[in-house]
Amino acid sequence: MRAAIFRNGEIVVDAMPEPVPGAGQVLVRTLACGICGSDLHARKHAHRMVEMAKYLPGSKPMDLSRDVVFGHEFCCEVLDYGAATERRLRPGTRVCSLPALVTPAGPSAIGYSNDNVGGYAEAMLLSEPLLLEVPNGLLAGHAALTEPLAVGVHAVAKASIRGGEVPLVIGCGPVGLAVIAALRIKGLHPIIAADYSPARRARAEKMGADVVVDPARSQPYATWAEHAAMSPEEKAARPPFQMHLPALKPALIFECVGVPGLLQQVFEGAPRDARIVVVGVCMETDRSEPMLGIMKELNVQYVLGYTPEEFAASLRLLAEGEVDAPSLVTGSVGLDGVAQAFDDLANPEAHTKIIVEPWR
Amino acid sequence: MRAAIFRNGEIVVDAMPEPVPGAGQVLVRTLACGICGSDLHARKHAHRMVEMAKYLPGSKPMDLSRDVVFGHEFCCEVLDYGAATERRLRPGTRVCSLPALVTPAGPSAIGYSNDNVGGYAEAMLLSEPLLLEVPNGLLAGHAALTEPLAVGVHAVAKASIRGGEVPLVIGCGPVGLAVIAALRIKGLHPIIAADYSPARRARAEKMGADVVVDPARSQPYATWAEHAAMSPEEKAARPPFQMHLPALKPALIFECVGVPGLLQQVFEGAPRDARIVVVGVCMETDRSEPMLGIMKELNVQYVLGYTPEEFAASLRLLAEGEVDAPSLVTGSVGLDGVAQAFDDLANPEAHTKIIVEPWR
Repeated sequence: MRAAIFRNGEIVVDAMPEPVPGAGQVLVRTLACGICGSDLHARKHAHRMVEMAKYLPGSKPMDLSRDVVFGHEFCCEVLDYGAATERRLRPGTRVCSLPALVTPAGPSAIGYSNDNVGGYAEAMLLSEPLLLEVPNGLLAGHAALTEPLAVGVHAVAKASIRGGEVPLVIGCGPVGLAVIAALRIKGLHPIIAADYSPARRARAEKMGADVVVDPARSQPYATWAEHAAMSPEEKAARPPFQMHLPALKPALIFECVGVPGLLQQVFEGAPRDARIVVVGVCMETDRSEPMLGIMKELNVQYVLGYTPEEFAASLRLLAEGEVDAPSLVTGSVGLDGVAQAFDDLANPEAHTKIIVEPWR
Repeated sequence: MRAAIFRNGEIVVDAMPEPVPGAGQVLVRTLACGICGSDLHARKHAHRMVEMAKYLPGSKPMDLSRDVVFGHEFCCEVLDYGAATERRLRPGTRVCSLPALVTPAGPSAIGYSNDNVGGYAEAMLLSEPLLLEVPNGLLAGHAALTEPLAVGVHAVAKASIRGGEVPLVIGCGPVGLAVIAALRIKGLHPIIAADYSPARRARAEKMGADVVVDPARSQPYATWAEHAAMSPEEKAARPPFQMHLPALKPALIFECVGVPGLLQQVFEGAPRDARIVVVGVCMETDRSEPMLGIMKELNVQYVLGYTPEEFAASLRLLAEGEVDAPSLVTGSVGLDGVAQAFDDLANPEAHTKIIVEPWR
């Protein structure tokens, strides 16, 4: 079969053996696989990813001297079953799955692994117990958005919303848009969202942002504060020793950019007692002023991934039309177009999500 | 009156005018004032403190070209009242107070201010509404521990303890010891505490640590894990997708050191889903690997100070003998000894808390 392979720091198209399903496994044809920002990061910073994985008990870092097939946002079609399977879903059924294989030692990642082929290949293996049938005739390219949407759903769940917070989303790339969609579904308003790109701001509004800010023109935290004024009742109910502080509702800031220096910017702009959810994946060493965090008593919640329940809920949300999938998909390519798509995604005006269709 | 003054980066003893109580204010004689680690930091990094204060709306940074009298952990004796006071407490009454003056613009800090003299002086001004009478004949030198104990009480309160967490306290200086005392009072056991200094480990045990670790001999996080094993019931109640993870109770890590690199060490050692409370005050720029926080979904809560209620509760705890005050005070000096005491506090074997007695 053909695949777009990460080899020696580059994406190259080459032939590789089609995988053979083992016990409990399913061979699937890859219908659609989204290109994730983490894949772009991984191409640039693969050695860092390997280094960091060493700190995580149970994770198996990639061997970069060997081939890796990226791709963890996929929708597939059942082809064939291995041994010890129930074969509940007929061949031809469209399915999604968490990007992991069930093994006796725990989940084994699909997409950043030498062993498990990711979605930038014509076929791959999945674990039967993790298969989720795609409902309502949802298109494969839209079902592939389940994974990135689940990232937003999880980030919002980890934010421990008590009600009354005013959210500010920094960065409206795919991660920020997923967070905005999850916030809208959660009913937390007004949603303030900031991005330098006009196209991304327009998409943020489509996803449910109530107010969008261009940081080149106005300070996102000032705009946030305009929309976060306490009601007279909330103002009066504050403890006496807080009466001199600005009468603002609690801030819930989602950092959805993931580059060095960004968290420090959030520390500088955030109001006192802000809760910050770090959803952007910054793979480089970062610098910050802890005194800002201390003086403002900030809370930083780092998040990654999602639970199986959040993943399944995200597929349902897409299938029920709760999230405007078509406006998130801005392009599609075959395997030969993957390397170029990686470059194209650097332009925020052009793209949110490019879908790889390996069968093309 | 005489005072130990921060002037041109040094502590010098000099005469200065005795302050005159304004409306709502009380003139007090300073009986005892603890030397805080933040004062040592401030002597070294005062320019950084000024720089950081600029980010905090409503705070008035120090003018370092003018005199400052440090000292914010004090117990005093009422001398005289200004206008518009109720004069509830007779002259001679021993009192504590939050280190702040009430002003129409909000609290104004005592101890890091050009305007408000701190406790390293023979007399100072307090705000009448903030006075707390020292109960039960508690010694002035022990009542002065109210402020540092409140820091620990507040840190534990901000940790949002749900029950079942196993705490690990990194650093057993005055801040770490206050956290240990507050954890013991909260009843969260076992308390694991780590410090390189044998004297500090011994004090940690006196304060209530159940297990102490010398990081030079064994890894604090490994020792923590030995004491954090889930019960069979907890183990069985985990969601299926977590069954492959180490069966450990939730980690609650208190960073009580406050030097660059320490938070990164915590990121490296912490188990997945750990909650980290940053109580140590790191005044320098810090570097960390956000990927570690992300991969482990860590939560970082920065804390500072305390509420008036926490401060009052801390004084009560000391007066009721709930905290072993005598074992925390390791020395006392007059004003002429303050500069030397700043140097002496660098030796963790020798001291926990040195009390300044300006009347000596």
